[in-house]
Amino acid sequence: MVKKVDLNTDSGESFGNYKIGNDEEVFKYVTSANIACGFHAGDPNVMRKTVRLAKNLGVAVGAHPGFPDLLGFGRRNMEITKSELENYIIYQLGALEAFTRAEGIDLQHVKAHGALYNMAVTRHDYAEALANAVKTFNPKLIIIALPNSEMRKISEEIGLKVAYEFFADRNYKEDGSLVPRSHPQALVINIEEATKRAIRAVDEGLVRTIDGKDLEVTVHTICIHGDSPHASEIAKALRTKLEEVGIKVAPLRDIL
Amino acid sequence: MVKKVDLNTDSGESFGNYKIGNDEEVFKYVTSANIACGFHAGDPNVMRKTVRLAKNLGVAVGAHPGFPDLLGFGRRNMEITKSELENYIIYQLGALEAFTRAEGIDLQHVKAHGALYNMAVTRHDYAEALANAVKTFNPKLIIIALPNSEMRKISEEIGLKVAYEFFADRNYKEDGSLVPRSHPQALVINIEEATKRAIRAVDEGLVRTIDGKDLEVTVHTICIHGDSPHASEIAKALRTKLEEVGIKVAPLRDIL
Amino acid sequence: MVKKVDLNTDSGESFGNYKIGNDEEVFKYVTSANIACGFHAGDPNVMRKTVRLAKNLGVAVGAHPGFPDLLGFGRRNMEITKSELENYIIYQLGALEAFTRAEGIDLQHVKAHGALYNMAVTRHDYAEALANAVKTFNPKLIIIALPNSEMRKISEEIGLKVAYEFFADRNYKEDGSLVPRSHPQALVINIEEATKRAIRAVDEGLVRTIDGKDLEVTVHTICIHGDSPHASEIAKALRTKLEEVGIKVAPLRDIL
Amino acid sequence: MVKKVDLNTDSGESFGNYKIGNDEEVFKYVTSANIACGFHAGDPNVMRKTVRLAKNLGVAVGAHPGFPDLLGFGRRNMEITKSELENYIIYQLGALEAFTRAEGIDLQHVKAHGALYNMAVTRHDYAEALANAVKTFNPKLIIIALPNSEMRKISEEIGLKVAYEFFADRNYKEDGSLVPRSHPQALVINIEEATKRAIRAVDEGLVRTIDGKDLEVTVHTICIHGDSPHASEIAKALRTKLEEVGIKVAPLRDIL
Repeated sequence: MVKKVDLNTDSGESFGNYKIGNDEEVFKYVTSANIACGFHAGDPNVMRKTVRLAKNLGVAVGAHPGFPDLLGFGRRNMEITKSELENYIIYQLGALEAFTRAEGIDLQHVKAHGALYNMAVTRHDYAEALANAVKTFNPKLIIIALPNSEMRKISEEIGLKVAYEFFADRNYKEDGSLVPRSHPQALVINIEEATKRAIRAVDEGLVRTIDGKDLEVTVHTICIHGDSPHASEIAKALRTKLEEVGIKVAPLRDIL
Repeated sequence: MVKKVDLNTDSGESFGNYKIGNDEEVFKYVTSANIACGFHAGDPNVMRKTVRLAKNLGVAVGAHPGFPDLLGFGRRNMEITKSELENYIIYQLGALEAFTRAEGIDLQHVKAHGALYNMAVTRHDYAEALANAVKTFNPKLIIIALPNSEMRKISEEIGLKVAYEFFADRNYKEDGSLVPRSHPQALVINIEEATKRAIRAVDEGLVRTIDGKDLEVTVHTICIHGDSPHASEIAKALRTKLEEVGIKVAPLRDIL
Repeated sequence: MVKKVDLNTDSGESFGNYKIGNDEEVFKYVTSANIACGFHAGDPNVMRKTVRLAKNLGVAVGAHPGFPDLLGFGRRNMEITKSELENYIIYQLGALEAFTRAEGIDLQHVKAHGALYNMAVTRHDYAEALANAVKTFNPKLIIIALPNSEMRKISEEIGLKVAYEFFADRNYKEDGSLVPRSHPQALVINIEEATKRAIRAVDEGLVRTIDGKDLEVTVHTICIHGDSPHASEIAKALRTKLEEVGIKVAPLRDIL
Repeated sequence: MVKKVDLNTDSGESFGNYKIGNDEEVFKYVTSANIACGFHAGDPNVMRKTVRLAKNLGVAVGAHPGFPDLLGFGRRNMEITKSELENYIIYQLGALEAFTRAEGIDLQHVKAHGALYNMAVTRHDYAEALANAVKTFNPKLIIIALPNSEMRKISEEIGLKVAYEFFADRNYKEDGSLVPRSHPQALVINIEEATKRAIRAVDEGLVRTIDGKDLEVTVHTICIHGDSPHASEIAKALRTKLEEVGIKVAPLRDIL
């Protein structure tokens, strides 16, 4: 059986006159786009344009909800009650879906942004807010999540489809969690090495942890950091290498 | 045949810790609620609560999009390009619909807020942005509009259903436009007189203009200003009197 | 020697069309006003009006900086770097001072708002950001702080004047910290009892803790919660009783 | 006598994670920096950094207030009452001055941004709001204005110093107004030609209008558009050529 994997990237993170990312280039290589919804980044025009671009390049579209913190780009932890957070996410899902509908395509998935994603890895209440929001809005949407996370657990418990995400450029601990960014070896900077790790993770289901042991991983999608200056290069390298070894790169809806 | 009319009110205009309006009271008497969508007023929690309140009290729900100007409560004219404005409106429609879906009800209509409504009365580009947004998002939605307006004309031209709105507390000019608020006789302050004008407009299709002539009007819905301190009183008086003279008060979907 | 105490209140927390608090009434009884600076609440017009009102009623003016979170009214914890937080505070101090200058009066003090105040009680970095901001902007400004706090400690270490704040409506623990709001006995709801506690704290320098022991306290200012619906009643009762027992109620600049 | 001219540029227009402009480069050649104040662009950290950069490179600092419209980058006309606008500007002046004080330098001038600048050219109320705000905040600040404008007229009437601004890259009409951007010949795109026009304007006090006539102009400062991709190139070319012909490039405070 042919092995398959999705490549996902954050996108649509420009705002008004401000540009971030290079969606035109990166979308040539990825299969799923997480599009910002106007809270941590993005605005209605950027959303419309990005959905249209994804449609034209055959990239599947997902919502990329974040905290209401444009000034901090959604990367700062905020304390929000569970029900408020659920509503923030429902709002963003609806706003983005309006544009997929306007462009005649379906919403495929949801991936939380920045601090919301990170907090939903360990915080039960945030994970529940996210899962509930998606279930309430549209239970057919796929949630992209770190396998070893509250977010993954709760989403599966309430019956949502979860895509397991792999970070090629991050080191892992034995328990499947990511080595925190504060650690000197948090990142796998070398593109070639990151690519090899990604291929091994998809192909053999294994990743070498920071302690030198092999950890079993299931990989449905690999994250391409859209705001990295080399995002399109990395996406291109990764896609090329994956296809060279016979792994099919396809959107989540063709995998799960 | 029994005559029917809808009573609509702006609602859901609180924000975070800030309260405006008394939706709990006003919703007892109106049949359609225009719910703010987070741009000029409202936030995701307020939207959720207001949609739920409307559902519980049997009030039909519409979107109340406005300019991105919380500081000015959407009442200040802004110059926005047509395509940007269209996207601002689509965004807000999607956001609100997410909450009607979460609460298991349908979105019935759209009514533009404040300066957006006023500008779409005379500005072709703004009227077109509004009509296009609604048609793109969901062509079955009803648009509430001043009969003598660009907004009404374009909406009908592109095939949307338009509900003709009557302002019981405003004086009219011979051409069907409202006497501007800057004019000393812009307002009909006396509730009894306003109620009589509303009944005559629905019953006989006539309103006395500021120049003392009778103007023909078609009325599908009457506006109750939700941020008036006496909103619930006015709504109650109007509804009681309308029903006393045998006019049925019903949501727009039962009228158009 | 005549004993003196200041009464401070949060104020200027309206925003655009949204009203919070009743500054006109409360300002009749307090001596220092903490005026919101446009981040968690307030806007330039509200600031101007509130500064003018304070001036007209002889109330001393302070800045009331908060987190950039209007949606959460500055009451939600946020993770911000120390240098960014310092700049957020400097920005707000400058903005408010512009209006005191426009109205021809001096800025007297600074009191942090909501989550910023609470976090600066225990978080060294936030306390330092606040103290540094004040020292950088104007080292003559008085900081209002809980005596048992990082905020107080660091402010004094770097040479700022600190006004020790007493909460008449809150229960204290033996270490001088406030009983958390989640505790059933966090609040002293009875106005008479709160007033007695305030008088005893100023007069005898003692407050009965939740464990029934007497704790020594130094009190320069007593907090009146401006967004309480009974704020002006409480302020009036407190001021009247304090003056009845011969305690002079005066702004901080006359005390420190 | 040596002729002198100032070169001014908009700056500090980044926001959070978003970057606009290349202040590090452009500041090598200009003498006055108009720093955004957090309304149309800029944030407290960006302001601090930009003020420090200007100080380190010997560039004089001015405030660059704009409309409260980050989404539109302050380039969209908004209807605001005169007193509200005055307060918006006072707020921004105070916020920026806080950072000049933090960095130990003086605020030199004020230049309105985008739609606020353009509207204050012809609208008496906006021009008055701007002039009043500056006079109220600090009557020693210099206002940069188009000579043929309400803004210039009113500022001088109330006793403010006005720096007359020249746009090297814009065509002029006979009455001294700029050819609107909608006109095909609005812009002088060629850098060499623009440079020559600038030199002639400073040296001879003349500019060739779009109708081929010579218009008398007084030039205290020349605008370098900071968000142009070639801003630093243009600034460098202009400065070099001006100095080659013996014109001294110096900040406004050395000219007026």
